[in-house]
Amino acid sequence: MTNKLSIALAHHPVQNKNGDIITSAVTNLDVHDLARVARTYGLDAVYVVTPLEDQMRLIGRLVAHWVTGHGAVYNPKRREALERVQIVESLAAVREAVTRRCGAAPKMVATAAHPPGAVIDYAELRHLLTDGTPYVLVFGTAWGLSPSFMQTADHVLAPIQGPGPYNHLSVRAAAAIILDRLLGERD
Amino acid sequence: MTNKLSIALAHHPVQNKNGDIITSAVTNLDVHDLARVARTYGLDAVYVVTPLEDQMRLIGRLVAHWVTGHGAVYNPKRREALERVQIVESLAAVREAVTRRCGAAPKMVATAAHPPGAVIDYAELRHLLTDGTPYVLVFGTAWGLSPSFMQTADHVLAPIQGPGPYNHLSVRAAAAIILDRLLGERD
Repeated sequence: MTNKLSIALAHHPVQNKNGDIITSAVTNLDVHDLARVARTYGLDAVYVVTPLEDQMRLIGRLVAHWVTGHGAVYNPKRREALERVQIVESLAAVREAVTRRCGAAPKMVATAAHPPGAVIDYAELRHLLTDGTPYVLVFGTAWGLSPSFMQTADHVLAPIQGPGPYNHLSVRAAAAIILDRLLGERD
Repeated sequence: MTNKLSIALAHHPVQNKNGDIITSAVTNLDVHDLARVARTYGLDAVYVVTPLEDQMRLIGRLVAHWVTGHGAVYNPKRREALERVQIVESLAAVREAVTRRCGAAPKMVATAAHPPGAVIDYAELRHLLTDGTPYVLVFGTAWGLSPSFMQTADHVLAPIQGPGPYNHLSVRAAAAIILDRLLGERD
């Protein structure tokens, strides 16, 4: 099942603090952390989305260091995680890549700290993940995914909420919690 | 309840790749991510543990930037998270600080990817957290907490396990998942 779920980390189209649509810079540790979480929960693919060619090259070199370079020998567990990272130029390219890999177009599930409209909860998404369709969980960087992408997503996942109203997790922490809620042991 | 649970991020005593006991360098993003997770789940204190005076000063400046400096104006949500960070020189100092804050000595709960002995599971720890005793969840950096600290801890928490044997999460991801399992909504 889990090989039909992928995650995408979007650096475009995302919002800045003022709600403008921007392209954010890729954070090295985001790539490592999301790849390690994906490996832990059995996902085959982590798509790092940026349209900037120099960022694509930079992240490509970083990943290659751990997958085929010195890092692969120094820390094979890091290789196991990072070998599932793919760098693509857009969320449309994520959809195409998943369609090629899985033989069917994926449903796109947006995540947001403050979703503008209706959401599905974790139990609902756990249930959907058993239906055989490929799904992509999309995480935004900076101040979150653009409203226009949110509107075109097939689903928006409920935000992670603690006991109070505060909701300002890093994308690294949010992705870890969400994958654990969807795929981790329930006790 | 949650104000009797704290977290400690230990940079000493931890292991390097070869099992030697070392002091690791503090990673800026660890401090941010753990503070934001702690704020989200209602914890009052995050103890950053390092015996190195220059590291204590550096992290003190970093935290002050967000709590009382320019960062507090730029991003008040970051201030809300980082104002719960305290920098202390040892795990013994964490115990003393919690004892002062809560009026009773805490139980120390170690976390580990590969615990050497008996562990408690998440349901057991959720139950313990209701008993009125202060608890400190201790996270190790580098290759994990020293075996000698693990032996003196009151409890060791079960590792996070996905569907396979891979278990190599960042401390940022592990702390997020563990707090969500202990204090997040269960559906």
